[in-house]
Amino acid sequence: MSKDPGFITPAAMEGQGGYNRSSQVQAAGLSPAVPMLEFAARTVALPAGSQPIVIADYGSSEGRNSLLPLSAAIAILRQRIGPDRAISVVHTDLPENDFSVLFDTLNTDPNSYLRRDHAVFASAVGRSFYEQILPAESVTLGWSSWAIQWLSRAPSLIPDQLQVAFSRDAPTRAAFSKQAAEDWHQFLTHRERELTPGARLAVMTMAVDANGEFGYRPLLNAMYSSLVNLVDSGFLSGEEMRRMVIPTVGRSRADFLAPFGADSRCGLLRLEELEIFLGEDHFWSDLERDGDAQRFAARWAAFSRASVFPTLAGSLNSGRSDARTAQFIERLESGTTVRLAANPAPMLIPLAKVLLTKEL
Amino acid sequence: MSKDPGFITPAAMEGQGGYNRSSQVQAAGLSPAVPMLEFAARTVALPAGSQPIVIADYGSSEGRNSLLPLSAAIAILRQRIGPDRAISVVHTDLPENDFSVLFDTLNTDPNSYLRRDHAVFASAVGRSFYEQILPAESVTLGWSSWAIQWLSRAPSLIPDQLQVAFSRDAPTRAAFSKQAAEDWHQFLTHRERELTPGARLAVMTMAVDANGEFGYRPLLNAMYSSLVNLVDSGFLSGEEMRRMVIPTVGRSRADFLAPFGADSRCGLLRLEELEIFLGEDHFWSDLERDGDAQRFAARWAAFSRASVFPTLAGSLNSGRSDARTAQFIERLESGTTVRLAANPAPMLIPLAKVLLTKEL
Repeated sequence: MSKDPGFITPAAMEGQGGYNRSSQVQAAGLSPAVPMLEFAARTVALPAGSQPIVIADYGSSEGRNSLLPLSAAIAILRQRIGPDRAISVVHTDLPENDFSVLFDTLNTDPNSYLRRDHAVFASAVGRSFYEQILPAESVTLGWSSWAIQWLSRAPSLIPDQLQVAFSRDAPTRAAFSKQAAEDWHQFLTHRERELTPGARLAVMTMAVDANGEFGYRPLLNAMYSSLVNLVDSGFLSGEEMRRMVIPTVGRSRADFLAPFGADSRCGLLRLEELEIFLGEDHFWSDLERDGDAQRFAARWAAFSRASVFPTLAGSLNSGRSDARTAQFIERLESGTTVRLAANPAPMLIPLAKVLLTKEL
Repeated sequence: MSKDPGFITPAAMEGQGGYNRSSQVQAAGLSPAVPMLEFAARTVALPAGSQPIVIADYGSSEGRNSLLPLSAAIAILRQRIGPDRAISVVHTDLPENDFSVLFDTLNTDPNSYLRRDHAVFASAVGRSFYEQILPAESVTLGWSSWAIQWLSRAPSLIPDQLQVAFSRDAPTRAAFSKQAAEDWHQFLTHRERELTPGARLAVMTMAVDANGEFGYRPLLNAMYSSLVNLVDSGFLSGEEMRRMVIPTVGRSRADFLAPFGADSRCGLLRLEELEIFLGEDHFWSDLERDGDAQRFAARWAAFSRASVFPTLAGSLNSGRSDARTAQFIERLESGTTVRLAANPAPMLIPLAKVLLTKEL
């Protein structure tokens, strides 16, 4: 792992089932976007002929959170195309994603679409979606959930924070904004190429609310203070902590709109729908019911572990192969839990859903 | 892992790059089949229209050995279809295959077809090829190398051996023959469905020679005696060793021909070519040149480690998650090396290449 911040890139989500087990926040957050995907499935233009209809799931991780939305979309397409025409579902993620757990989930989970419909076939692509990764004009229905908040890379270190949204350093904030704009544009450009004429793409991702608030503040404070403690105790060096960055962004309405002209068009893509909404903090609702602050904190720490800890561990001196990796993750998880349990507070979860159509 | 022998199924090849590093025997053995794949690419009927041409690589493991044959086939197809039409390569293997190494190899190896041709796209499927795993009539060119010698499961334990070819137990030999016949027929049936009309499929696999000899005898003797030693030393229980089976078969000319009628047809598949040949033992040639028996033995032991040790480790008491797994593999590798180095002898490597065409 190079120490050049230009090479701090996001790691895949936690493997060996970690993401599947600890992504309830994501599952809850994506559910308001499922009706949008169902609408897309109902109205998308279907390619003539008998070749398979391709659905792409951009940023699938280990797949469990894709089962419900994709099954719903497949059921709707199936009504339109009859029982025999094949549907091909392509799940994409970074190369180091745990594809074995993905395939095992698809092959064996009772909710898997593979178990419900014998003319559906699954495959995977291990490449960043900031490139073209599927043939031109091959994808009829696209889905991307909790994925494009990850930048292609961290454009710089963050001097005062883990997450740029809380940084007071103007040049850093500007660099991340620029990267976020470029990545959104790259994502659109490559998807435009991959979609069939008339195809639809439903995207659900992190956002900032109308006040520009990124959210998750109690969690990120607990995590930051836990890292400071790991430095104080000598487990982590100050230099290692200085390199730790969570390369995610919440985008504003204006950020999403930027590549689109007054006619809502960006190349052949038309913006059909854009909504910023707040996800519900179900862990907080449970705490209000049962008063269990420890469980609340542990669930949010597990969320962080499954999604951002692998990237933070990449900044250890020997990168992802550092001998301290497992212990670093355990300690950061328990430290975050202790601190959040001591000061539990509801999380603000600003999210966005976006529906795009490629011109016929 | 159940102890019921009906559930002894092959494991994927060794992960974390192990198969990529230690599969020179396979690389050498497949090379005589590459001209057959090139012939198939030159003569296969191409689907009309502009949709991607699909190449399937059945049993890819970590992908390095697929790069040369597939690059050759892609170069030939490219001459026929021009620079723009997309080619989609699907690599299939068992779900627990190390797909991260596969994708990393495809994305970064200097010999990868992805680096040579920007209209080629790669994906993977993590399901056994003894099922239909791709849409009907979707594959134009098929390749399978060093894969279908693996049975879908061991039909029984082998009382006196690891490898059924050396067993003297007639019922066991009969059970494995029956399984081998069923699996070959299943493989053909599912591929017949997946191939486009006029498609071609080139298969290279283990065989027995004209005398019915399976080969690899010095290696398998060293491995067996090394396992006996692990039992004698108390590292392994007798019960664990009794469950160890290598569920591979070498097929004879008659075995390959069995599903085909006098007209060389099995359903819509036509047998175009079938040749049994002997692979060269390059490790032996090197020993003859340099006299280094230790290196000869270590290379053959590494071949076994990368291909069959993961399956043997599955018979440890706690299955693939047994705490002794890493040590078992290390000890079996070093034990096999010591014994083979003490009695080096050339390996017989009987192989088969088969070319099939689906009726137009």
